[in-house]
Amino acid sequence: MTAQIEHDLSSNGVLRLTLNNSQRRNALSQAMIGELHQAITDASISSDVKVIVLSGNGPAFSAGHDLKEITAARSNGDKGRAFFISLMSQCAAMMTAIVNCPKPVIAEIDGIATAAGCQLVASCDLAYASDTSRFATPGVNIGLFCSTPMVALSRNVSSKHAMEMLLTGDMLSAADAERMGLINRVTESTSLKALTQEVADKIAAKSSLTLAIGKEAFYRQQEMNLKEAYAYASEVMVNNMLTEDGEEGISAFVEKRPPVWRNQ
Amino acid sequence: MTAQIEHDLSSNGVLRLTLNNSQRRNALSQAMIGELHQAITDASISSDVKVIVLSGNGPAFSAGHDLKEITAARSNGDKGRAFFISLMSQCAAMMTAIVNCPKPVIAEIDGIATAAGCQLVASCDLAYASDTSRFATPGVNIGLFCSTPMVALSRNVSSKHAMEMLLTGDMLSAADAERMGLINRVTESTSLKALTQEVADKIAAKSSLTLAIGKEAFYRQQEMNLKEAYAYASEVMVNNMLTEDGEEGISAFVEKRPPVWRNQ
Amino acid sequence: MTAQIEHDLSSNGVLRLTLNNSQRRNALSQAMIGELHQAITDASISSDVKVIVLSGNGPAFSAGHDLKEITAARSNGDKGRAFFISLMSQCAAMMTAIVNCPKPVIAEIDGIATAAGCQLVASCDLAYASDTSRFATPGVNIGLFCSTPMVALSRNVSSKHAMEMLLTGDMLSAADAERMGLINRVTESTSLKALTQEVADKIAAKSSLTLAIGKEAFYRQQEMNLKEAYAYASEVMVNNMLTEDGEEGISAFVEKRPPVWRNQ
Repeated sequence: MTAQIEHDLSSNGVLRLTLNNSQRRNALSQAMIGELHQAITDASISSDVKVIVLSGNGPAFSAGHDLKEITAARSNGDKGRAFFISLMSQCAAMMTAIVNCPKPVIAEIDGIATAAGCQLVASCDLAYASDTSRFATPGVNIGLFCSTPMVALSRNVSSKHAMEMLLTGDMLSAADAERMGLINRVTESTSLKALTQEVADKIAAKSSLTLAIGKEAFYRQQEMNLKEAYAYASEVMVNNMLTEDGEEGISAFVEKRPPVWRNQ
Repeated sequence: MTAQIEHDLSSNGVLRLTLNNSQRRNALSQAMIGELHQAITDASISSDVKVIVLSGNGPAFSAGHDLKEITAARSNGDKGRAFFISLMSQCAAMMTAIVNCPKPVIAEIDGIATAAGCQLVASCDLAYASDTSRFATPGVNIGLFCSTPMVALSRNVSSKHAMEMLLTGDMLSAADAERMGLINRVTESTSLKALTQEVADKIAAKSSLTLAIGKEAFYRQQEMNLKEAYAYASEVMVNNMLTEDGEEGISAFVEKRPPVWRNQ
Repeated sequence: MTAQIEHDLSSNGVLRLTLNNSQRRNALSQAMIGELHQAITDASISSDVKVIVLSGNGPAFSAGHDLKEITAARSNGDKGRAFFISLMSQCAAMMTAIVNCPKPVIAEIDGIATAAGCQLVASCDLAYASDTSRFATPGVNIGLFCSTPMVALSRNVSSKHAMEMLLTGDMLSAADAERMGLINRVTESTSLKALTQEVADKIAAKSSLTLAIGKEAFYRQQEMNLKEAYAYASEVMVNNMLTEDGEEGISAFVEKRPPVWRNQ
């Protein structure tokens, strides 16, 4: 099996992962999901990687699950049940790995992002798209409601907006996706890479330890009530203050000099 | 007692429920709440109904609770307590029935939607409004904070926006309601019905079973944490894939032909 | 120690609290946090105060924690741990006191609001800002992720927007803050005070008891699931209906006369 993903690590720690199966519109086949999960896991523990940018070759960022793979599984003795269970479990684990990855993950969308491909955008920490990109959760059109994509989608946009996408299956323009909060910003296709790179470079210059502390705390405190969230976040802050990077950063600021991170 | 609601079922399964007490500004009296709850319950189990559109005759979509009914109850021996308990319970049950209804419910607003009338808009899955429509939770002006309306409102718009509506009681324009995510889209009054009908017809063409699976899953997963939500939604997806409509929909897509739903 | 906060109570019950340490950019030092917490506590139980407006003298609304104070604590025997624990605990308690205060709290921002200063904006019920104001959670730039500010921030804006602020540390314009829902409205600096005053006066004319009932219920029901929230809010509504102000407000409305609040 040929590799489904291109890896490109810059000297400042920006890892570009490019879905590279344009013929299959970067479908999230079992192979693609496996490779992407592995790449995220590797990047999570690599001291060389500071930030991850996720993009796709060809006209699609990702068109979601591989329907031919799903259809093929129906000829199994169990009508595909075991394969479907395995596929859904692997896909959810990969999406969750992005959320749990201590490195910020940025989606760079230049094309269509549909179904699980739209879920992938929603699962990233940040998302930037070209103005010709489009987004949809069109499963309802093929009898298969986008129930797993909506887990990520409904944690990004308001209920009415999520429901309109899910019930109609309609394509959303990049401008609408920006307005609804699914993506951070829209730009012209020609300047998309520069925009994403600028954000990635900026984040890569921060303390990796600080980013890891903050990203983990963000998603954990979101699932707590206010009282629990403050108790937890206060503890995180105290520990962060006592790290070398916390001390160095504040000292550098007070002394009006650039910080030198131990965990750069 | 005359009927408070007009029923109109089209051949493609779009049920129009029109609140029809314009003299009382479609107030959610006990009678109106009861009829609406019954209509939703009937539609929930009717195989003829695919989608519900909820609108109002006259200048108000709905002005909320019937204040004369509430004032009359104060002359009861218990100063109205028993009636108020019953009214609040029935109203919350009706709003919850909309959320739990397996058929998508679309609010079509051409006029004012205030207090429990605004809650009704927020409780629907989708909402479209004319540009002259207005929205408010003005209970605070009459000493009665819109505490039950805010349950639905605060699950649709951000905290600052909800609080401004609740604390000031001010009227919101349809454009502001769209910007805040309370409604999906604004259009001219003359084209409102056509817009709502277009969305309803589009949804009515999907598999009813798929819509029911998805709508239930949407509201259930929203109340779970990410891990629970993915475990639950993955199971929903597997079961959906194994339905006849799930198989037919994907097969039709792969074979580039229109699907024929078993559960149309 | 000189007072850090100016108090100004108008005859209609609008209490203006103005952070008044422009030299330190209204930093949330332990002294400032203590004074602000005390002022909120006093206002919470004062029958003279109906609404609180929180603003800042000088070019900053508040620049967050006092980094010199934090740096000084590092020379303690425990490298500052005890001080940091105490500071974080006091700060979270003060922010929570704003949420729990029975009187609505309005932030009036004319300048920068960063880190815990941005958290202060997010913690208020309403927020209005001049068009030159700017907002950021820049802790990541000094090795100290804004983990406690994000508790309030992430309860106001969508995940992608919160994460962009937290990971980049970039300054947000007032227009962007309005678009994202962090603040209610932007206006010219010259008309900011008039706007805030107008909103405060409007709220001050409502029944204090009704406002207190509603504000408490708002934040409590937000942390419940839909079923619990409706059961709780229905009970709140019934009790509100049985208050004198609830009866007076509805009677006055039905009789088309202005209400006379018992709990004005």
